[in-house]
Amino acid sequence: MRKNNSFAVLGDICYAVAADDLKTVPHAYAVCENGLCAGVFKALPDRFSDIEVIDMSGRLITPGFADLHLHAPQYSYRGTGMDLELLEWLDSITFPEEARYADPEYAQKAYGLFVDDLRRSPTTRASVFATVHTDATLVLMNMLKSSGMGAYVGKVNMDRNSPDVYRETTEESVKETCRWLKACETAGFLADDSIVRPIITPRFVPSCTDELMRELGKIVEKDKLPVQSHLSENISEVEWVKQLEPEAKGYADAYDRYGLFGTESQTVMAHCIYLRDDEIDLMSQRGVFAAHSPQSNMNLRSGIAPMRKLLEKGVKCGLASDLAGGSSINMFKAVTDAIQVSKLYWRLTDETKAPLSFTESFYLATKGGGSFFGNVGSFEEGYEFDLLAIDDGMAKTSLEFEIEQRLERTMYLGHAGFIKAKFVAGRRIL
Amino acid sequence: MRKNNSFAVLGDICYAVAADDLKTVPHAYAVCENGLCAGVFKALPDRFSDIEVIDMSGRLITPGFADLHLHAPQYSYRGTGMDLELLEWLDSITFPEEARYADPEYAQKAYGLFVDDLRRSPTTRASVFATVHTDATLVLMNMLKSSGMGAYVGKVNMDRNSPDVYRETTEESVKETCRWLKACETAGFLADDSIVRPIITPRFVPSCTDELMRELGKIVEKDKLPVQSHLSENISEVEWVKQLEPEAKGYADAYDRYGLFGTESQTVMAHCIYLRDDEIDLMSQRGVFAAHSPQSNMNLRSGIAPMRKLLEKGVKCGLASDLAGGSSINMFKAVTDAIQVSKLYWRLTDETKAPLSFTESFYLATKGGGSFFGNVGSFEEGYEFDLLAIDDGMAKTSLEFEIEQRLERTMYLGHAGFIKAKFVAGRRIL
Repeated sequence: MRKNNSFAVLGDICYAVAADDLKTVPHAYAVCENGLCAGVFKALPDRFSDIEVIDMSGRLITPGFADLHLHAPQYSYRGTGMDLELLEWLDSITFPEEARYADPEYAQKAYGLFVDDLRRSPTTRASVFATVHTDATLVLMNMLKSSGMGAYVGKVNMDRNSPDVYRETTEESVKETCRWLKACETAGFLADDSIVRPIITPRFVPSCTDELMRELGKIVEKDKLPVQSHLSENISEVEWVKQLEPEAKGYADAYDRYGLFGTESQTVMAHCIYLRDDEIDLMSQRGVFAAHSPQSNMNLRSGIAPMRKLLEKGVKCGLASDLAGGSSINMFKAVTDAIQVSKLYWRLTDETKAPLSFTESFYLATKGGGSFFGNVGSFEEGYEFDLLAIDDGMAKTSLEFEIEQRLERTMYLGHAGFIKAKFVAGRRIL
Repeated sequence: MRKNNSFAVLGDICYAVAADDLKTVPHAYAVCENGLCAGVFKALPDRFSDIEVIDMSGRLITPGFADLHLHAPQYSYRGTGMDLELLEWLDSITFPEEARYADPEYAQKAYGLFVDDLRRSPTTRASVFATVHTDATLVLMNMLKSSGMGAYVGKVNMDRNSPDVYRETTEESVKETCRWLKACETAGFLADDSIVRPIITPRFVPSCTDELMRELGKIVEKDKLPVQSHLSENISEVEWVKQLEPEAKGYADAYDRYGLFGTESQTVMAHCIYLRDDEIDLMSQRGVFAAHSPQSNMNLRSGIAPMRKLLEKGVKCGLASDLAGGSSINMFKAVTDAIQVSKLYWRLTDETKAPLSFTESFYLATKGGGSFFGNVGSFEEGYEFDLLAIDDGMAKTSLEFEIEQRLERTMYLGHAGFIKAKFVAGRRIL
């Protein structure tokens, strides 16, 4: 980003600064200065009076969306095999397909489609699982960098309970992780201003031996790297973890005892459906993010995460597609899926837990999840300039709406085709 | 439809003949003869050897979809106000907007947008609520006829518990219903071959006095008209019906005692969430259709209909958007919504009730709901020729799939833009 590289986007601006605070400013300027937001103004201040104005009058202007959990290699088969539950789905569909990424040529082709669609989607930042393959993971990272997307990307670690064609030995897993991180350093992915970065990615407890977890914990501590994994997604899975790790105090502790559960290192855990209260408290204390993946949790029959409870207990939360447990990378849909399942949770499970409001869910998908990546997901001063210009008029209507209603109907009706411009950290990528 | 008007559509054909029986025929011909399907053939039989072939090679060919319940005047505000529950949503948003259709000019404009989008959607047949206004309802019916869509359309009846600006007296309601039916006759909507037809539409029990219900029952009996209404959508609503109709044996009986619940007349009831077992049995005995509206039931916090139970008890079932309780008229989405909520029902409410399989839900959205309109929703011989040609390649992937998987991913990922051709009763409308 050049110094003094300033411009403004003019349109109908809305953004959430808190879960209960949606700001809407009709026909206003969102100003970008050196990749950061300099604020939202009804009229341009003098110091910006001669900057370029990108005129998106009449468009809805929102921050970019953060997808806190998705599996890039699963993009190829999204929307298939949905009659299966988690563990059988992993064995019969997921692992065989992920194994194909041993071939960098296949990775190039398949990741190319994924990255191109992600670039066109509402997402500006994503926390991404790749596969166990170091080279294919670097292919993906380079593609994301070229596309201009912001992402944390993980080479996956798995050394047990996986098919022969798709498993590493403990030694290989550690060695390849080190080789990958070295390559990341060479390629600039560890530089302060890189918005594509490595993240340590033990697949989930059933896939990783204690020894591997211990080694990954050491790497995380040494290199101050972020961590992503899965936590308490499915009842059978939780039972399995109990059997596999009888000495751990629970699923959360199976990560925590190896330093893979927050505090020093930014950590995000997908799902968080069947947590005990003390595990929720631990997430809160450790600053571990919960990546709520409602669409996936329906598709794989997992259940509904207790979002109100997590929020009340102070857990940091964001939304996720969990592609390809979730079929769609459209984060607009994640906003409405989260609201819808929270309403069913309220009706079917616990009527003391109020459903997510529209503003809350929009907040989770922008500033809530965005904060995993730094100051991301809002137009407050100093936030990274991630911005979408949306043609909500594509959903035709005979009525005139206020900005808040236009935003709501965009979440219920919109898709990638609605997005007419997209900026990530001040760079226009669409 | 001209006599001997025959043609074929060539493509990758799939259709459900039963809830557990999906037929897939790659690169085959679906033949139309005088508006009806003459069958699906790998090679054209001699008698069809010289008919026109519409080449959709590589496209997915499916029957049209049936939307068993939607409110046309609510299209304007779809996707807004979703933080509200049913009864407050009716009062604050629905009734004020529906009242505007007293103005036929507004109706022309608003229904124009609705009908145009419905024509582009997967739906070929719909059971539609209009408003209380006779003239606006005729506007809608004429537009649907011009578009080529198949539909049952109802002038709504409501003479109590409605705001002053949007209520009829009992006498007006009956008189206007008769005027509307007379106009329908004049316009040809009662002719045997009309695919746009009137349907008697008491809004729901809370909106209709016993006297009005009685009069509507007489009209239904005399003119052998179909009936549509709402049934057991929401816990507060069910309680309210109990208070309003203490002499009825229940919500279903509040219709049945006036001859508005099947047997002689084709009847469809939306929602059917909180039914007693004897009410489900009554639906089954009377041949009353359940219009399952999963998206709406989430949005309005209603709950999840016990679809497995309804199917096991032999109730005829189909799927519905319930626009604008549901935000989208995309029936592909209704297929996946129905699967997703059935998985949550299984997980959260009753693990003895297996979730809907993909084939079951696709069947419900095509032949299941289609049978409300006659022989509709399949490519069996003699079925009305309702057909979609779908470019499922718009959801890009690095993999090759079988037809069944292509169909599944179309339901999870597809929208109106995927539809490249559409036929209703043998007429191409897109």
